[in-house]
Amino acid sequence: MSPIPPPFPEFKIALLGFGNVGQALAELLLEKKRDLIAKPGIGFRVVGIGTGTHGWAVDPRGLPLQDVLDACRAGGDLERFSSSPIHDSAGFIKKCGADALVETTPVNYQTGEPALTYLRDALRGGMHAITANKGPVVHGYRELSSLAHRNRVHFYFESAVMDGAPVFSIARCGLPGAVVSGFSGILNSTTNLILSRMERGETQAEAIAYAQSIGIAESDPSGDLDGWDAAVKVAALATVLMDIPLTPDQVQRTGIRGLTPDLIQDAAEKGQRWKLVCSAERDSSSPLGISAAVQPLLVSPESQLYNITGTSALLEITSDVLGTLTLIEDDPSPRTTAYGLLADLLNAFRN
Amino acid sequence: MSPIPPPFPEFKIALLGFGNVGQALAELLLEKKRDLIAKPGIGFRVVGIGTGTHGWAVDPRGLPLQDVLDACRAGGDLERFSSSPIHDSAGFIKKCGADALVETTPVNYQTGEPALTYLRDALRGGMHAITANKGPVVHGYRELSSLAHRNRVHFYFESAVMDGAPVFSIARCGLPGAVVSGFSGILNSTTNLILSRMERGETQAEAIAYAQSIGIAESDPSGDLDGWDAAVKVAALATVLMDIPLTPDQVQRTGIRGLTPDLIQDAAEKGQRWKLVCSAERDSSSPLGISAAVQPLLVSPESQLYNITGTSALLEITSDVLGTLTLIEDDPSPRTTAYGLLADLLNAFRN
Repeated sequence: MSPIPPPFPEFKIALLGFGNVGQALAELLLEKKRDLIAKPGIGFRVVGIGTGTHGWAVDPRGLPLQDVLDACRAGGDLERFSSSPIHDSAGFIKKCGADALVETTPVNYQTGEPALTYLRDALRGGMHAITANKGPVVHGYRELSSLAHRNRVHFYFESAVMDGAPVFSIARCGLPGAVVSGFSGILNSTTNLILSRMERGETQAEAIAYAQSIGIAESDPSGDLDGWDAAVKVAALATVLMDIPLTPDQVQRTGIRGLTPDLIQDAAEKGQRWKLVCSAERDSSSPLGISAAVQPLLVSPESQLYNITGTSALLEITSDVLGTLTLIEDDPSPRTTAYGLLADLLNAFRN
Repeated sequence: MSPIPPPFPEFKIALLGFGNVGQALAELLLEKKRDLIAKPGIGFRVVGIGTGTHGWAVDPRGLPLQDVLDACRAGGDLERFSSSPIHDSAGFIKKCGADALVETTPVNYQTGEPALTYLRDALRGGMHAITANKGPVVHGYRELSSLAHRNRVHFYFESAVMDGAPVFSIARCGLPGAVVSGFSGILNSTTNLILSRMERGETQAEAIAYAQSIGIAESDPSGDLDGWDAAVKVAALATVLMDIPLTPDQVQRTGIRGLTPDLIQDAAEKGQRWKLVCSAERDSSSPLGISAAVQPLLVSPESQLYNITGTSALLEITSDVLGTLTLIEDDPSPRTTAYGLLADLLNAFRN
């Protein structure tokens, strides 16, 4: 391919976290690099990559993205790509010199750490802070948003809920001046896949094993089965869409462990399906101003939820101006999540 | 209510077209005025209202919106509200002194006029141009967008397709850098309502009469029945989402006149429904680069289209990065359309 002639604005990106999603973003950046210069007219250089197990590399001239991907996959260390030595993630953020930090590290949902600290450091350093983690949204939305505002940068997190589906973009650009009164939907892919498999006759244990085998469920699937992951998403959505800070433990929560094959077959005989349904609505009788729940519910074919099978997801947003608006994402993948991060990057650079 | 203390940015709005949608926007502006100053921090004044049958009024100090609404509904003329005499819409656009023109006049779909001229004049005058009409999108998207860009203002048209549902906001903010490969959906409320009524046993004539009685269908319903309205929407979506200029006559088009009660009952007996389905996809074998159609199709309960009944609408967007993303709008109304215009105004003022 011939070189692309300047001038076009070239932004510097640092990736902190280089697992499935970070690597999928690197691939997407490689794939889209030339097209993005054509439209929306944005060039970029990846000036830093920080990993959990392969070390860190920074280079203001830009890292060779494909070589770094190959090295990581071969189990090598990234130090040899680095123009200066980096010893930890704090030093990485300080020295990477990026315009935007993309954070995809493992997160503790009780605290939002260490993502929260990384994002705060990035924003303080004048970088856009972009994350695929919902932990820092739940635990730091107001702080990080106002920090971003003060520093004239952006804190974006499209991939935190429903992968790359534009949930938060809709809230930002599609619903200005609207008052969101509530939402409901299916937001946990793992449990939805498990329930879909159980409808076809598997036991819960078999369905879990399958979900683990394809990398959807973790080795300890409790976070999904007990509704914790869904509750964190409900808290993030309430915090951002409804401007009501809510923590996951304030979400009434029942997981799917009680859904036996018998219950699922009984439902099927009545033409119904069990779904793990997330919901929240304003509630003036609650001291929180909101009632929020994650719970298994029986749904009928007339409901749009009925046809959400496998790892697909659905979110219904109810507002004072649009009635009910529904968003459905079919069969997400790490590429979808990576795209949410890319969309955040492009929106941050454009705005 | 106590007066709202300045300072907040106050934008001047002119409304050209004051039918159901224009009046619904005026009501929404009255309802939301104080809240919008609080968030997103935008104040406004309506400095001009132009109607088809009640004349025009401009006043740089702001028109008394409720009084103008009342006068219009009582069949009065607006001249008495005007600080200077206005004799036609061209003069109205020239003299209104607004920051944004909101255009909701009756439009000719073959030409996009006179909306196209109004919007062009507004943009040339340095105003944001906002329309609920799809005609000027189909006939003037590239021209008006580049004119807006040159004049550092915006040309927005969220309400042109799927009322206030954020179809174009998603394309703008939610899918940056994505390549849309196609879309499909149910985009014409009138025919969908007619088919839903026919499923309950009405003849097509009875269902049309009902749709007319509630103000959904026009006295001459051909535009809906023959698929023209849907074809214009397909052309608008292809032009904007896929960047392929398409005219309505380039859309393969079959309406619903051939759907007899017998056909609809036959489908029901098989558990299926007829829907007027819009679709478009890139097609390198076509000289247009796209194949687009509006046609009645049988859909099964496994399809999300099956549950779209009455005046609801659905759009599935397929892209290289998100797979299929689906947007559903339930039971739109003039208020929903008015909200699309308000969202455009707020996005124009913020950006």
